[in-house]
Amino acid sequence: MGRPADETSGEAHGEFALIARHFTRPPRDRSVRVGVGDDAAVVAPSPGCELVLAVDMMVEGRHFLPGADPETLGHKILAVNLSDLAAMGARPRWALLALALPDEDDAWLAAFSRGLFALAAEHGVDLVGGDTTRGPRNLCLTIAGEVPAGAAILRGGARAGDDLWVSGTLGDAMLGLAALEGRTTLDGAARAACVARLERPSPRVALGTALRGVASSMLDVSDGLTGDVAHLLELSKAGAVVELAALPRSEALDRKLAGAERSLALQCLLAGGDDYELVFSASPTLRERVAAAGRDTGVPVARIGRIVAKDGLVVNDEQGAAMAALPRAFDHFAVRRP
Amino acid sequence: MGRPADETSGEAHGEFALIARHFTRPPRDRSVRVGVGDDAAVVAPSPGCELVLAVDMMVEGRHFLPGADPETLGHKILAVNLSDLAAMGARPRWALLALALPDEDDAWLAAFSRGLFALAAEHGVDLVGGDTTRGPRNLCLTIAGEVPAGAAILRGGARAGDDLWVSGTLGDAMLGLAALEGRTTLDGAARAACVARLERPSPRVALGTALRGVASSMLDVSDGLTGDVAHLLELSKAGAVVELAALPRSEALDRKLAGAERSLALQCLLAGGDDYELVFSASPTLRERVAAAGRDTGVPVARIGRIVAKDGLVVNDEQGAAMAALPRAFDHFAVRRP
Repeated sequence: MGRPADETSGEAHGEFALIARHFTRPPRDRSVRVGVGDDAAVVAPSPGCELVLAVDMMVEGRHFLPGADPETLGHKILAVNLSDLAAMGARPRWALLALALPDEDDAWLAAFSRGLFALAAEHGVDLVGGDTTRGPRNLCLTIAGEVPAGAAILRGGARAGDDLWVSGTLGDAMLGLAALEGRTTLDGAARAACVARLERPSPRVALGTALRGVASSMLDVSDGLTGDVAHLLELSKAGAVVELAALPRSEALDRKLAGAERSLALQCLLAGGDDYELVFSASPTLRERVAAAGRDTGVPVARIGRIVAKDGLVVNDEQGAAMAALPRAFDHFAVRRP
Repeated sequence: MGRPADETSGEAHGEFALIARHFTRPPRDRSVRVGVGDDAAVVAPSPGCELVLAVDMMVEGRHFLPGADPETLGHKILAVNLSDLAAMGARPRWALLALALPDEDDAWLAAFSRGLFALAAEHGVDLVGGDTTRGPRNLCLTIAGEVPAGAAILRGGARAGDDLWVSGTLGDAMLGLAALEGRTTLDGAARAACVARLERPSPRVALGTALRGVASSMLDVSDGLTGDVAHLLELSKAGAVVELAALPRSEALDRKLAGAERSLALQCLLAGGDDYELVFSASPTLRERVAAAGRDTGVPVARIGRIVAKDGLVVNDEQGAAMAALPRAFDHFAVRRP
């Protein structure tokens, strides 16, 4: 019964000072009628738009290790939410942040908010509210964005005959993690590039909105290509055939695939988490429009296969033979220590 | 470096099954275009409305004890968010829930979702999205609601000469906690009533919306009357004089105030947390409209003082003398074990 032993009165004051110091910035957007500091935030939606909402929670000891670099965490908790909105074709606008922290560490908060606000500024997102409390470290961010009414790109819209596409490259984040864990070696530049993909993913927001009216279905690759494509197929009541040779990858990953570490490379490509690329379907009549969306937003897009009527996901190897066993979808990755 | 030891692959499947079992219900509201199950939710805002957003996080060991009744927690995490929206005069509509759980406990989740959905149904709220992960138990709920453009009731609108009002009764939740902790005794009925106030607060949503165009400022009493009124005064750049004799209270609390436990009673009344009542200011010309809002929504409203130009909060005792020392605002309360 009763209050836990670590409870202290007066948190309110500490909490308010902390919010003011690190999380109150003048809104960049006139849509923000009331930001941090009232019972709730008030924002003005755009006429003719629908609202798109997502939330992600990152827990110390599960999604990142104790001692993880706070600036990286600030970037990542927003990035994963932006990626969810990108996958709907939505424009992100407003964020709310709930934080449980074991202590009031000013340096940690300064770095965390720096990482968060840098990415928020890049995408025109205002932090409009939140909650802070003491507890095991837990970062929970809610993002709200907008899409013209009816224009959201859902998981369930793929139709047999559609092409299947993916943005960027796959597997680098997992390859970076493998390097950090000593399970593989990479030369300096490749290692830095892969670790950056793991720690500071670039959500494909501009590409996502450019694919409105083009993609018939879309989702973001956060748990690994095969697992995530399976969700898309399930909701679309369709199947897909994917060509391994067509999967876009970095030079470093390509070398592993051709060499002694092929098994690791396959795991990275097909089941690597934390890619935060977009996978989407589109009619073959729209190939030029897909390519244009990629060009206009500076994000490479690769056609990796096609949607078929027959249920299930088939991956053909370089010889065109269906792979017998697919690596399992990967779970969460850790963000490394500073 | 690397992944924490408790990481397992295949969480995805367990997670999806769990969401489907406990948190996927058909939307009650046609505004929900896409609910749980895509990258994000899509909802249609009402024309002419602004969006009101709030988030609250409750942590095991801080806001509630290990073993706390899950149905009560499901009620409470939504109730505290609804109270924030009530305090803006907003109508709650859509919720997102992020949960960190130490284990996949079906009975716990069934009870938790029962508590959550019962209150959600009462207020016409749809759960449209969320996130679940393994970790120290943490409940994080985001609420989105609506208010006609410009009609949100803010903290900063109180003006000298306004009346100060409060809904319901103050201090019962803290009195209930004191009884649970053995710091006071209450007869059976009073004890049950006070503990219910602590564990299953009734957010004053209907009263909040009824006060649009009437209240000049408002907030909810979650940390204790004096502390919360201080926030309102700070943003309104005003002061207030409150009459102790006018503070609405239960019979049980009134008896303590008149007796040997006056000090505890004062703490409950003036600095008891978890009341989730609304405190608001309104012009004296609108007294009848305030009374009507209370009558129409079945929530008593009491005029407890007035807004003055001079900074600071003065509480007059029953003899009209300013109290020298006010009890400090209270911190969080625990939800008791089942």
